[in-house]
Amino acid sequence: MPALHCSEQDGEKWHIQDPASQRLTWNKPPVNVLVIRKIRDDSLLEPFKELCQFLVEEKKLMVFVEKKVADDVTLTNDEAFSSICKKLCTFREGFDDISHCIDLIICLGGDGTLLYASSLFQGSVPPVMAFHLGSLGFLTPFKFESYRTEVAKVFEGNAAIILRSRLKVKVVKDVPERSEQDGGPDENGLEPHGHGSSEAGKVTLLQVLNEVVVDRGPSSYLSNVDLYLDGRLITSVQGDGVIVSTPTGSTAYAAAAGASMIHPNVPAIMVTPICPHSLSFRPIVVPAGVELMIMLSPDARNTAWVSFDGRKRQEIKHGDSIKITTSCYPVPSICCHDLVYDWFDSLAQCLHWNVRKKQTRLSEASDSSDTEN
Amino acid sequence: MPALHCSEQDGEKWHIQDPASQRLTWNKPPVNVLVIRKIRDDSLLEPFKELCQFLVEEKKLMVFVEKKVADDVTLTNDEAFSSICKKLCTFREGFDDISHCIDLIICLGGDGTLLYASSLFQGSVPPVMAFHLGSLGFLTPFKFESYRTEVAKVFEGNAAIILRSRLKVKVVKDVPERSEQDGGPDENGLEPHGHGSSEAGKVTLLQVLNEVVVDRGPSSYLSNVDLYLDGRLITSVQGDGVIVSTPTGSTAYAAAAGASMIHPNVPAIMVTPICPHSLSFRPIVVPAGVELMIMLSPDARNTAWVSFDGRKRQEIKHGDSIKITTSCYPVPSICCHDLVYDWFDSLAQCLHWNVRKKQTRLSEASDSSDTEN
Amino acid sequence: MPALHCSEQDGEKWHIQDPASQRLTWNKPPVNVLVIRKIRDDSLLEPFKELCQFLVEEKKLMVFVEKKVADDVTLTNDEAFSSICKKLCTFREGFDDISHCIDLIICLGGDGTLLYASSLFQGSVPPVMAFHLGSLGFLTPFKFESYRTEVAKVFEGNAAIILRSRLKVKVVKDVPERSEQDGGPDENGLEPHGHGSSEAGKVTLLQVLNEVVVDRGPSSYLSNVDLYLDGRLITSVQGDGVIVSTPTGSTAYAAAAGASMIHPNVPAIMVTPICPHSLSFRPIVVPAGVELMIMLSPDARNTAWVSFDGRKRQEIKHGDSIKITTSCYPVPSICCHDLVYDWFDSLAQCLHWNVRKKQTRLSEASDSSDTEN
Amino acid sequence: MPALHCSEQDGEKWHIQDPASQRLTWNKPPVNVLVIRKIRDDSLLEPFKELCQFLVEEKKLMVFVEKKVADDVTLTNDEAFSSICKKLCTFREGFDDISHCIDLIICLGGDGTLLYASSLFQGSVPPVMAFHLGSLGFLTPFKFESYRTEVAKVFEGNAAIILRSRLKVKVVKDVPERSEQDGGPDENGLEPHGHGSSEAGKVTLLQVLNEVVVDRGPSSYLSNVDLYLDGRLITSVQGDGVIVSTPTGSTAYAAAAGASMIHPNVPAIMVTPICPHSLSFRPIVVPAGVELMIMLSPDARNTAWVSFDGRKRQEIKHGDSIKITTSCYPVPSICCHDLVYDWFDSLAQCLHWNVRKKQTRLSEASDSSDTEN
Repeated sequence: MPALHCSEQDGEKWHIQDPASQRLTWNKPPVNVLVIRKIRDDSLLEPFKELCQFLVEEKKLMVFVEKKVADDVTLTNDEAFSSICKKLCTFREGFDDISHCIDLIICLGGDGTLLYASSLFQGSVPPVMAFHLGSLGFLTPFKFESYRTEVAKVFEGNAAIILRSRLKVKVVKDVPERSEQDGGPDENGLEPHGHGSSEAGKVTLLQVLNEVVVDRGPSSYLSNVDLYLDGRLITSVQGDGVIVSTPTGSTAYAAAAGASMIHPNVPAIMVTPICPHSLSFRPIVVPAGVELMIMLSPDARNTAWVSFDGRKRQEIKHGDSIKITTSCYPVPSICCHDLVYDWFDSLAQCLHWNVRKKQTRLSEASDSSDTEN
Repeated sequence: MPALHCSEQDGEKWHIQDPASQRLTWNKPPVNVLVIRKIRDDSLLEPFKELCQFLVEEKKLMVFVEKKVADDVTLTNDEAFSSICKKLCTFREGFDDISHCIDLIICLGGDGTLLYASSLFQGSVPPVMAFHLGSLGFLTPFKFESYRTEVAKVFEGNAAIILRSRLKVKVVKDVPERSEQDGGPDENGLEPHGHGSSEAGKVTLLQVLNEVVVDRGPSSYLSNVDLYLDGRLITSVQGDGVIVSTPTGSTAYAAAAGASMIHPNVPAIMVTPICPHSLSFRPIVVPAGVELMIMLSPDARNTAWVSFDGRKRQEIKHGDSIKITTSCYPVPSICCHDLVYDWFDSLAQCLHWNVRKKQTRLSEASDSSDTEN
Repeated sequence: MPALHCSEQDGEKWHIQDPASQRLTWNKPPVNVLVIRKIRDDSLLEPFKELCQFLVEEKKLMVFVEKKVADDVTLTNDEAFSSICKKLCTFREGFDDISHCIDLIICLGGDGTLLYASSLFQGSVPPVMAFHLGSLGFLTPFKFESYRTEVAKVFEGNAAIILRSRLKVKVVKDVPERSEQDGGPDENGLEPHGHGSSEAGKVTLLQVLNEVVVDRGPSSYLSNVDLYLDGRLITSVQGDGVIVSTPTGSTAYAAAAGASMIHPNVPAIMVTPICPHSLSFRPIVVPAGVELMIMLSPDARNTAWVSFDGRKRQEIKHGDSIKITTSCYPVPSICCHDLVYDWFDSLAQCLHWNVRKKQTRLSEASDSSDTEN
Repeated sequence: MPALHCSEQDGEKWHIQDPASQRLTWNKPPVNVLVIRKIRDDSLLEPFKELCQFLVEEKKLMVFVEKKVADDVTLTNDEAFSSICKKLCTFREGFDDISHCIDLIICLGGDGTLLYASSLFQGSVPPVMAFHLGSLGFLTPFKFESYRTEVAKVFEGNAAIILRSRLKVKVVKDVPERSEQDGGPDENGLEPHGHGSSEAGKVTLLQVLNEVVVDRGPSSYLSNVDLYLDGRLITSVQGDGVIVSTPTGSTAYAAAAGASMIHPNVPAIMVTPICPHSLSFRPIVVPAGVELMIMLSPDARNTAWVSFDGRKRQEIKHGDSIKITTSCYPVPSICCHDLVYDWFDSLAQCLHWNVRKKQTRLSEASDSSDTEN
């Protein structure tokens, strides 16, 4: 297996000709392809091998896979696949940075594969082509059955593409000095706000494709959480939590929490409460580019928990802050048909949106004589 | 065709053995059967003829149908059906009262046939057996295909039955003296049904199976409408209107307006606003037996309109009142399976309640590596 | 009273310096001001007179009012106001086109005054400054109490401004030739689609600030209505109707129908069903610029009705179409504070958004001993 | 302090004269009063002392309090209160069973005090009189300010009372044989309450006033959970969880999850999904008396967690079952005014139900000229 070797990046390999057309064009033919497969799902094994063989032998591409995917015993034990396997480039998440040498990402599996692909690229993201195996997903429009023709069409260029906005999230942990009150689990120690620049605060930066969720975690009670927009306190959340999502995320957890569904091409950020105590706490949609901030309310008695696209769950304490705004690194997601068709198709198939028997009226009184007096 | 002739009613023909069991038992074999069919639907013609023939010739029953149904040219022109047709008893709604001589009602068509059947019986209602032709309805659990065996089973007795509560509605029109302003705007004058307490106001009494709807009618704006419970002002409705429904009606218009769905065996009345201006105006469920009253608010600038199971639409003005309570005349509706199965079956089939693809998670991040930091 | 006389328009009087800043700057001092007041509300009479006097005498502006406002007897009978009254320029809606000579619009009253102002300007709209008298409205952020200082600040320039997108609506009535099939009320005559260019179809063009509503009108039943997006059938609406709204309209009727609330700065169009029969028919948000089209479904048995910002209600029959897209003429609405503050302030005050008692938990079990075993 | 001594129970001390009237009458004057106060809330200390003094000295009653309440240092340090304190009967939850010797419960604090009181009485419950200190709660209708007159009125008899239904919950843990895999994962072992039917499984019995919640606990993913009604599989829950609540609980967590609100006098059980993946999973209401059962779906990959009125949180694994039905031991809750007034008052005050500015229409176009074309 060759070592991870990235060709120098002398400019983008692809571009979108014209924002209005939203079509993908290759400046140079793609060379390095990252293949991501859903793990722990044996039904994906054969498609994965077939795809790798196709890309390596027929398309003569450099194929990248995660080391643990390549090291899977079912793969390594497969004699027939060993020649292909040797040609795969492997990398380990968190150790090897491949984010600058990939020209195209191909996902096999559910929406989660795309969320995972997104997490690997904290800066700019190459185009993503995502196949579903069983049933259509919001993020996986392509059928694997016809992968040869679909891949060929994408390589030709001119595929419809949607730039899925991501959220740039900055978590600042307000690390208190440990000198005196040391050892302790820092129960609710309410530090003076905002002093935590410099060394004091630990900062995490994240790119999120679906949503940031702040919830009560294992606790029975959510702490009150305050929501700021462009530095101004907008409202306080009492309930199970709050979801800050992209339009892409509006059809995921936010939909379960009652939000309206937003087409991924709308430049917006959605704020959706989870089981709010207030009957009037309807979800809201604010313009892309605003800065949201979430902190525990000063009088909060419990902590909160935050997660990012369902990952990296962590506790939020007094003084910690979560700042969220629109990222300048969207995920260019290749459409199977086009922006409109794909979305409404997945609304119908994934969420059964307005799918019903057509013939019956809920309350029809037109039967038999219907004389009004 | 024989004239309408009712055998004397010397006691109920049927009873429910034990409320807990909710099973129908015949004291005497049913003799007089009312058949109601959805009109203006030619696909029902053959089933209707087949059913009548079966009931008249095989079961030797007295079959009642509406005159306009029997007079339908497609029926009268059918030579083969003429011998059956002559044996049908006919009646005209509003002229011939058959409410005391019917032992069993059989409906053919949609939920509307049952609403119509309900409207014919302002007092006690005989058991109803309702067939759907195309797709299952909430009120029409039986498949027509197997009508012979189903009817036989019902005649045997011991069928599961559900007593669907109805609402007793009393509309009091605050009739102004007619001396000067005569010829007035009261074209929707309600008729005989219960022609009121002389000078004080014109009173209409109605039995309702699904719901009473008060809305803005053809106007763009609803007048404010006040809602009283047991004589006390509970709230005011601003919006498109308000629905007062039975549990049976909770799966009809009230469901469209956002209500939770209530099993028809729960003794309750549901109040559901239609597009309320207030974000916090959630539907409520109150105990069966309370008396609700709806009136225009004193400061209302427009009138409102009321309808009853989608029928008898009329205007409500200042001083008019609509009093609603649980009727003591429910509709005994024969179950196809039982109270539980039938309801959940129709929730799934009519409303697609919680029907979805099982395999996918809305927002699944379990794919590939999922390391927590 | 001077005749209606418009100074030649040699270029815009105002501009927005930089879209990011969204601040209003005057190229030339405003000269012609249109004052709109809510009619039939006597409480507005004194504020209206005071404002006119201020604008005419102190600010030396040319003030335009509707003729019927100026001709109000309570105004013409007021001796003290007669000198001002003589200086007002009057116009009649539908006769006199003032849309090119107004530099600033000032509204007195509720949100309706701004909807009305919008309807007067079917092309570009001058900046609008809107005062509420009683309680804050979404479209009327200014308090009248401090009108002198507020007007002065706006005249100085640099006021925060929000460009509220409007919808451009094109209603094409499919007028059938009347030669042969004349006389008839055209019941459901389903003409072959699309032939209706030239003389065949009557076309109406409208600018809408809040929403286009298609509903069942005075009928008890909505016809099925089909919704197209960029020429493709997206879904069919069964229910009471459908609302196509701007973000500005998302806090109006759409909110009552269950939509999420969208900040007016988000470039989007919202589609919200009204009491849909399908439990899964959630509102959706699509990008500004798409073209929506609404028509009766081919198999629809009833007509539908359409209205525009609550006005110009009309019937829609088979073959008629309603095309809706984002207008290139937004309403520049002057903010009282800024885009963020004004919106959240009105969410709280107009809709009580997430306003509640802070101290209590809905279901709090933390009282007394709470030992977990 | 006297030892816990219960007078023999020779019959109920109270009754409800007539279910229709729902009024409380004392057969004998109440003697033993249990006082429950919210702990960890110092603002309740003075009211608590005042109330105890009143009950002990003026009313000459035997007052029961929890041992840890009586042992609170702020109480024991208070010289002035020591004489009263000596006369209090104390008990320890889980050790001393006072459930048969209490004639009246008085709660001081939030709704949680009543949930706690409910948990102390696993069989029949004496009447409860609940005072709120700060703001009204659903379960705490009385103002403390007027406690003397209110208590006097209740002692006189004839107070309005509402029988709040509870749920009887039976949790059966499918205990695997402990021979080999001992020391196992069952740390949450439930105790004495009803220590199970021998070898088959460990059984816990519980009375619940608000709701049983099954959720994903600390996990990011809920296992699929199956819901059975009277032994029949009704539906599967995918989402954050499911709430089975009484009507009393419908205004607590279920309301936050989107349920309609049910008056506590309706004999029903409510099933409400928490953030369901399916758009069509609307809450449902089923008749009191049915038996619901919840189990992990056979194919579930994670466990679930259950809690009861927010307490006794525990894990549910494959084979475990939760059976829920209406209890025959309701909580007789004394009304401040009556069943109707108290409920609507708390809807308005606790949930701001339909509280809004009355004057404004969301979308009002009635301003200025409104000519229809």
